[in-house]
Amino acid sequence: MKKINTSSISGTQELTPKDQTKFDQLKDSIIRKYHQHGFLNIETPTIERTEILLAKAGGETEKQIYKVIKTSGSEESIKEALRFDHTVPLARYVVEHENDLSFPLKVSQTGLNFRGERAQKGRFREFYQCDIDVVGRNTLPIAYDADVIATLLSTFNSFKLNTPVLARISNRKILSGLLEALDLEKISKEIFGIIDHAEKVTPEQTKESLEELGLSKDVVRKLLSFIGLHGERSAVIKELGNLEITNDTFTDGVNELDQVLYLLESADLHDQIMADMQIVRGLDYYTGTVFEFILPEHKNIGSVCGGGRYENLTKYFSDKSFPGVGGSIGLTRLFYVLNERGLIADKANFLDYAIIPVSEHEFDEAMNVAKKLRNKKHSVTIVFAGKNLSDKLTYATKVAKNGIVIGEAEVASQTLESKNFETGETSEININVESNPEDFWAD
Amino acid sequence: MKKINTSSISGTQELTPKDQTKFDQLKDSIIRKYHQHGFLNIETPTIERTEILLAKAGGETEKQIYKVIKTSGSEESIKEALRFDHTVPLARYVVEHENDLSFPLKVSQTGLNFRGERAQKGRFREFYQCDIDVVGRNTLPIAYDADVIATLLSTFNSFKLNTPVLARISNRKILSGLLEALDLEKISKEIFGIIDHAEKVTPEQTKESLEELGLSKDVVRKLLSFIGLHGERSAVIKELGNLEITNDTFTDGVNELDQVLYLLESADLHDQIMADMQIVRGLDYYTGTVFEFILPEHKNIGSVCGGGRYENLTKYFSDKSFPGVGGSIGLTRLFYVLNERGLIADKANFLDYAIIPVSEHEFDEAMNVAKKLRNKKHSVTIVFAGKNLSDKLTYATKVAKNGIVIGEAEVASQTLESKNFETGETSEININVESNPEDFWAD
Repeated sequence: MKKINTSSISGTQELTPKDQTKFDQLKDSIIRKYHQHGFLNIETPTIERTEILLAKAGGETEKQIYKVIKTSGSEESIKEALRFDHTVPLARYVVEHENDLSFPLKVSQTGLNFRGERAQKGRFREFYQCDIDVVGRNTLPIAYDADVIATLLSTFNSFKLNTPVLARISNRKILSGLLEALDLEKISKEIFGIIDHAEKVTPEQTKESLEELGLSKDVVRKLLSFIGLHGERSAVIKELGNLEITNDTFTDGVNELDQVLYLLESADLHDQIMADMQIVRGLDYYTGTVFEFILPEHKNIGSVCGGGRYENLTKYFSDKSFPGVGGSIGLTRLFYVLNERGLIADKANFLDYAIIPVSEHEFDEAMNVAKKLRNKKHSVTIVFAGKNLSDKLTYATKVAKNGIVIGEAEVASQTLESKNFETGETSEININVESNPEDFWAD
Repeated sequence: MKKINTSSISGTQELTPKDQTKFDQLKDSIIRKYHQHGFLNIETPTIERTEILLAKAGGETEKQIYKVIKTSGSEESIKEALRFDHTVPLARYVVEHENDLSFPLKVSQTGLNFRGERAQKGRFREFYQCDIDVVGRNTLPIAYDADVIATLLSTFNSFKLNTPVLARISNRKILSGLLEALDLEKISKEIFGIIDHAEKVTPEQTKESLEELGLSKDVVRKLLSFIGLHGERSAVIKELGNLEITNDTFTDGVNELDQVLYLLESADLHDQIMADMQIVRGLDYYTGTVFEFILPEHKNIGSVCGGGRYENLTKYFSDKSFPGVGGSIGLTRLFYVLNERGLIADKANFLDYAIIPVSEHEFDEAMNVAKKLRNKKHSVTIVFAGKNLSDKLTYATKVAKNGIVIGEAEVASQTLESKNFETGETSEININVESNPEDFWAD
């Protein structure tokens, strides 16, 4: 009988070993792909000085910060809190370690972040985020925007989901330039907000919201037609040209978008990218390229990845200029929605082999055989427990793909048979063939 | 100029990308070895209900617990705190998910734990621990004790340290049986404490501490001679036999120790294990097998890994009995001491290739070449930034082992040359040979 409530706290993820295996595969895949694309991993502490976190946070985020305090805590310890994203710690890291870093700095960060949100289904208070960022010193070529998007797409492709992934890409300078041409700069923040929100409401509601700003019917029509622009690079670039807007902001935005999309095409990603003027991203933070990934067959999931270009990562911490571009996968939420919909392939079973010694007399031989199989990179468990052989076999089928029974006869003949639990096929295995010595990376 | 203090808080680890790479290699190696030995990974939330943590904690540990509170926090949110080890959450996990688990449950946990210690060199408040545990339902064969030690030794061996690792192993029942025979059960807790402490003080001080308990010179001599017993299995087992103690506790302890050591010998680990009566482990928690790993050439580092057998993991949470055996690597501290002493092999450089497009005209070809090299499992970055070619090459040598320059000539001839930055050797590379399609695990 339980003596106490043993459930994990709400808003956190706690998985069975089977689901944890699936989760870990996604995480490993992300880490591997980020590295393959040249991003170096870094890790900052979970606990930060509150003043560092508050330098950027504001509004909702500030309310959601978890402060930490020692049980025996003095005033002093309340000055610390749990990070709510990877961006603020990265900014601090860049300023602190500038002289030890090579710029452009390509870094990845994969770890837990914390937000004191109201717990609800699919919303997490403690969650993994997997970020990549490229940070330049003073300048950063636009090609890195394509580099980031290519990396994230390649990462999603490595998940082998049973459904396609599409990157919707735009550049905030384009809408800014349009608003400049329409003489609407003063209310650009409000208009960005309405457009960012447009997919969560009906087209009619978006129209009303724009009209409420006091815009003429003609202007509203132009804006709605603008955010409807989406498709393949050359077509969208042409349509943007047809708008005949000549200010630098607009022209720069279109050129940057064109370059980013062109480079992604060069990386063979034509089918997975789309120019889409609907994408503006909520945060003021972004200043150029913006993107969001969706699963077109599961639109109601919403964005599964997002990011963009920002002018200056470290503005709260330093006078120097560090422009950057980055993106983030919210892994805990992503896993939750994918797993719920059965979009992640199931792994057959956990381990390669279970060795089943018939009695205690074969425990030593089992240790010896396990050692040799592990030297060949196999995952192996030994079933020491169980009332009888049948008991041990039942356990073995739950944890491994193949079983090897070792009894007196096997020890005497030094012949072992492996049985595939799924197919029932058996095959003799020779564990005495020499394998390579253990290798740091490969084993 | 910095506007704010950007150092990480004291008692936390923050590494340069180069050191982070070394740290991540140790961590990956641990995760891989644990899996190879049949341990399934699980992860519990960092934040636990305070009442769960306090069910076991006491004394010093309780004072060190970090509570978490939302900035906009009510009374309610102070009921949560950060875990200080993996054992308490594992106990909760086993009780909560019992029906979804197969017993004996072999699990690994690798994650951050938090303790509000006074910050000092080499002591961390936020640190990685990498645990394995085998948990039985009602019973658990002693062979699993050997399984845990073999796994941890194999893990240390995969680190490829430039120094040997030795497991010192004992069984608390042996000392308990000795104290029973000497009629000292009433002060056994004090004696265990003194023996556990013995390596931190002089032999003379240990003697004095024992004498202060009111023990006769003869008894003190017997105890000191007992804790001096160490060496290879058969010799130590024989010497323990010579003590002619016949109570069940002592006999069980000796038999268990004999079996554990014998099975480790069967796994080819003779050279890395030693019976050692000095090892008792501080915590009352342990009831049988106890062990600690040391680096004999660097004794002042102290124990780098420890663990043992415990009677009942879940006693604070459930009436059912779950005996277990486990061990833990304190990774953050381990990395700190190994790195400080230069015991971890340095990796030459981060990435396999840096592709260097001469001008913007080759950016597209660079994207294409990178894609193909990554399909062959290589890690590749493209150097888009830099005033000129020399600038780009300088950057490339800092992040990658090999460089590939792509200019007009290379695009025209479709011939690429790779240069090894260390040796200066160049070789033609053919990127157009078909590689296997991307594979979830292998890429």
